[in-house]
Amino acid sequence: MSETSSSRTDGGRLRGVLAPVLTPFHADLSPDARRLARFCRWLLDHGCAALAPFGTSSEANSLSLGERESLLEAILEEGVPADRLLPGTGACALTDAVRLTAQAVRRGCAGVLMLPPFYYKAVSEDGFFRFFAEVIERVGDARLKIYLYHFPPVAHVGFALKLVERLLQAYPRTVVGMKDSSGDLAHTKSMLDAFAGAGFDVFVGSERFLLGGMRMGAAGCISATANVNAGAIDRLYQAWKSPEAERLQAEVDAARGAVEKVPLIPGLKAIVAHHAADPGWITVRPPLVDLTPAQRDTLLGDLAALKFEMPGLRG
Amino acid sequence: MSETSSSRTDGGRLRGVLAPVLTPFHADLSPDARRLARFCRWLLDHGCAALAPFGTSSEANSLSLGERESLLEAILEEGVPADRLLPGTGACALTDAVRLTAQAVRRGCAGVLMLPPFYYKAVSEDGFFRFFAEVIERVGDARLKIYLYHFPPVAHVGFALKLVERLLQAYPRTVVGMKDSSGDLAHTKSMLDAFAGAGFDVFVGSERFLLGGMRMGAAGCISATANVNAGAIDRLYQAWKSPEAERLQAEVDAARGAVEKVPLIPGLKAIVAHHAADPGWITVRPPLVDLTPAQRDTLLGDLAALKFEMPGLRG
Repeated sequence: MSETSSSRTDGGRLRGVLAPVLTPFHADLSPDARRLARFCRWLLDHGCAALAPFGTSSEANSLSLGERESLLEAILEEGVPADRLLPGTGACALTDAVRLTAQAVRRGCAGVLMLPPFYYKAVSEDGFFRFFAEVIERVGDARLKIYLYHFPPVAHVGFALKLVERLLQAYPRTVVGMKDSSGDLAHTKSMLDAFAGAGFDVFVGSERFLLGGMRMGAAGCISATANVNAGAIDRLYQAWKSPEAERLQAEVDAARGAVEKVPLIPGLKAIVAHHAADPGWITVRPPLVDLTPAQRDTLLGDLAALKFEMPGLRG
Repeated sequence: MSETSSSRTDGGRLRGVLAPVLTPFHADLSPDARRLARFCRWLLDHGCAALAPFGTSSEANSLSLGERESLLEAILEEGVPADRLLPGTGACALTDAVRLTAQAVRRGCAGVLMLPPFYYKAVSEDGFFRFFAEVIERVGDARLKIYLYHFPPVAHVGFALKLVERLLQAYPRTVVGMKDSSGDLAHTKSMLDAFAGAGFDVFVGSERFLLGGMRMGAAGCISATANVNAGAIDRLYQAWKSPEAERLQAEVDAARGAVEKVPLIPGLKAIVAHHAADPGWITVRPPLVDLTPAQRDTLLGDLAALKFEMPGLRG
């Protein structure tokens, strides 16, 4: 979609709708790089300004370091453009985060999306600062652009205002934005109020907050459901100032609502499997589990009632 | 200590006091295998029946897979006996957990201590069961002995009674015990009541619960503070039926209380650094941070007042 291409950057900055790309697996639970690359291309052609592989919806933390590295290499070799990639490179282990981040920079990715190290829970601001400072210093590359991935409902740790402030002061050209998956627009507003003036871009973590976020100055959204509904979400993104915006928001909310009735990641995979006519897509890695047949039927039925489609995915 | 050696197994089962061994780092934050091996030997000579390297106190989740594999190889090469090792091999990624667990079995370790995959929080019992089943099937070795590491305060996921029951039913010779770090003796009791009869061994996760746990039928304790106080904890373990037990419990509680006033892992490292006269021991990996000088002074002062010692650690 040409309007997506034209809107995807703004002075080199990411803008618009990004999908944390689902990771397809073979029957033996090994990642399927070719299927992933094909899906990446489809997403870029159907509403995604860029892609955030290796996010929560990608089951990235269910992948080993080597699997993540190999998958990134593979999708680049298959022609997915690096300058439209924002891979997740956060990890509990400093050495893993450094290695993944260095690879992304070396391969020309637009930026990286970093979870904080999420095992220890009683970590001080100093500890998180030191972790990110070490990553930045060790990668040691002026091209590095970090987007902080704030997701307290799952990570149980996050980025307090003061921590973001310290990171921005120390690394103003490197720490450039946030994915705010707090599920709280007041939090998004606090980040924008404090840091948007310094060029810090905030993406909301669900399209439910896209219109509200855009009105506050957000840069777009990085949302799990962009894996299946990026076209409609992008139409909302493009038209957020128009009289159609509320209606477009209601439309994407309806689809999101149907998906949220079931576990999110297996739900999204079931949708892709159905619309791609490719049952292999349903496979998730443990500890996640597939939908039950009843969950799947409800989900697909609800979406059919909304005339939901994924054009061109099949074949 | 001869009584430790004699008490460490009971028909091949682990018993007594285990330390989740602290991981020493070089100044560049790389793990120091030789210092680790030396410390392992000291612990085995000073109260530890066995060792649980790569636990929470070991900063294991701050280490990469390769670092964990190399460290285990290194301490074995340095003469730490495999049959007294219970390495942590849990991981968020199935492939990592399989690889670490297979290494431990191949190298003859007494067992493995496994955290559940801890990134996703809304995981079903089926999902955890499937994860452990995959690990067990893929390792595919009758020598494998898994101890489940139940630690909801940090992992935010854990092992419900029903999940343990399913695992025991499916893999009765493989799933053999638990480290219960719930901090709740009622939970320990529920596990013992349900499964001790089937030969399931429960270790309490802190020596605070050792006497209470032993009276319920626990197998011992696997405790962070065993890194510095295993001798006294083992005296309590040996004498739990004696009239001295309450006094010995109070003594280990007093030391534990001093350590708990500061962040636990950097606190334990500061104690080892002091008693080994080896300042390099204080280094922690981000996101953890060193104690402040004031915290360190308070900690060492409190312990000195308790006449706390680590005999033979220096040099």
